[in-house]
Amino acid sequence: MSQVAYRRLSVEQRRRQLLEAALGLFAHRAPEEVSLDDVAASVQVSRPLVYRYFPGGKQQLYEAALRSAADQLEKSFVQVRTGPLSQRLARALDSYLEFVAEHDAGFKALLQGGSVVETTRTTAIVDEVRRAAAEQILLHLEVPEPGLTLRMMLRTWITAVEGASLIWVDEGKQPPLPELRDWLVDQFVVLLAATASRDEQCAEIARRSLATESADGPVGDLARRVLPVMTQASHLLGQD
Amino acid sequence: MSQVAYRRLSVEQRRRQLLEAALGLFAHRAPEEVSLDDVAASVQVSRPLVYRYFPGGKQQLYEAALRSAADQLEKSFVQVRTGPLSQRLARALDSYLEFVAEHDAGFKALLQGGSVVETTRTTAIVDEVRRAAAEQILLHLEVPEPGLTLRMMLRTWITAVEGASLIWVDEGKQPPLPELRDWLVDQFVVLLAATASRDEQCAEIARRSLATESADGPVGDLARRVLPVMTQASHLLGQD
Repeated sequence: MSQVAYRRLSVEQRRRQLLEAALGLFAHRAPEEVSLDDVAASVQVSRPLVYRYFPGGKQQLYEAALRSAADQLEKSFVQVRTGPLSQRLARALDSYLEFVAEHDAGFKALLQGGSVVETTRTTAIVDEVRRAAAEQILLHLEVPEPGLTLRMMLRTWITAVEGASLIWVDEGKQPPLPELRDWLVDQFVVLLAATASRDEQCAEIARRSLATESADGPVGDLARRVLPVMTQASHLLGQD
Repeated sequence: MSQVAYRRLSVEQRRRQLLEAALGLFAHRAPEEVSLDDVAASVQVSRPLVYRYFPGGKQQLYEAALRSAADQLEKSFVQVRTGPLSQRLARALDSYLEFVAEHDAGFKALLQGGSVVETTRTTAIVDEVRRAAAEQILLHLEVPEPGLTLRMMLRTWITAVEGASLIWVDEGKQPPLPELRDWLVDQFVVLLAATASRDEQCAEIARRSLATESADGPVGDLARRVLPVMTQASHLLGQD
């Protein structure tokens, strides 16, 4: 059976098939729990055949699967540049959180560290994904030369998104994805508002972005929800 | 010389001396760049002597140094429970950021992952420090039974602090420590305000915490800075 299947596939098709099988296995188990035999068995080929395509064995398969997952994720960050910023962020977050949901155990193992397959190469791929996310946001913000404060703000938010996603996986994917996504968009908006008051570039971005939001959108909703929290402590505004 | 020194120190003193030397070396270099010979040379003893105290070699020394650094950090999270929450957070952040500044290269190597000495034991120690930080904040918030939203909020903020600290090290410790600390306190306050509008437990905490802040303190300052950003987009409040 497998010999017949083997002859039918081109080299590139077979490589692709093995890679997808590996990605499927690494998505739902810790790397420690995936063997080359598992990969071979899942596409009904022999272990030596897997080695013919991936002479570096499990480590090479893991890195190739990670590379492929990273490419997929980076593509999902590219969003059309129309509509309010909050909508674009929400769309990108939806793709990201769906990816996390589909690769839960692998995502957790990759980001929690200490895994047997973790190398400077795998951490470089993870960093590249973070950089790609920051670059996409800068495109939407239309800022060609981000200053230190803006760069720190974006990287900090991206770290927070990643951290929240890990916690979400730990908590059995609760709250539901749309709720988590809305909360992460809220975080971006309040972080931008708080940073805007410290940095002129961020202030300019906040002015431009808030102008594109509408009263019945998520940022209008957020503003109506947050203002009472801040103003209930109206003594802070020196109005006592 | 070293024999004389060796005889003078008790077993516990010698162990302590080696550990401190290792911590000093691991603080400012990547683990890859620290050898057992470096540790031996820095306290003028022989390599076999280091092995006598740490038979597991560099890995054991690294884990012991990390354990000692983690204990030091966890102690620094314990703050007196007086004054507004923002002041307590600022004090804990000062200790944390000073620790980061003093252990820059080691902190970065530890948290960026992919290091040769990283194991499930080292990542467990890092996770323990994060949990200790969350527990200390819960003590100050006086919440014995935190719900899912509050737990996610705290862990997300702690992740953001850690991420911002890494970026800060990358950026040559710019902006100055007090500025970074104030920005991180701001982030906590706006995150709490944004989350308060979604969750009753967080709303109750926001009410209690904001009541302890004063108009001339950092939260009064933040409220005065953020409200104009939100209200300049007053169309969001449906007042157009």
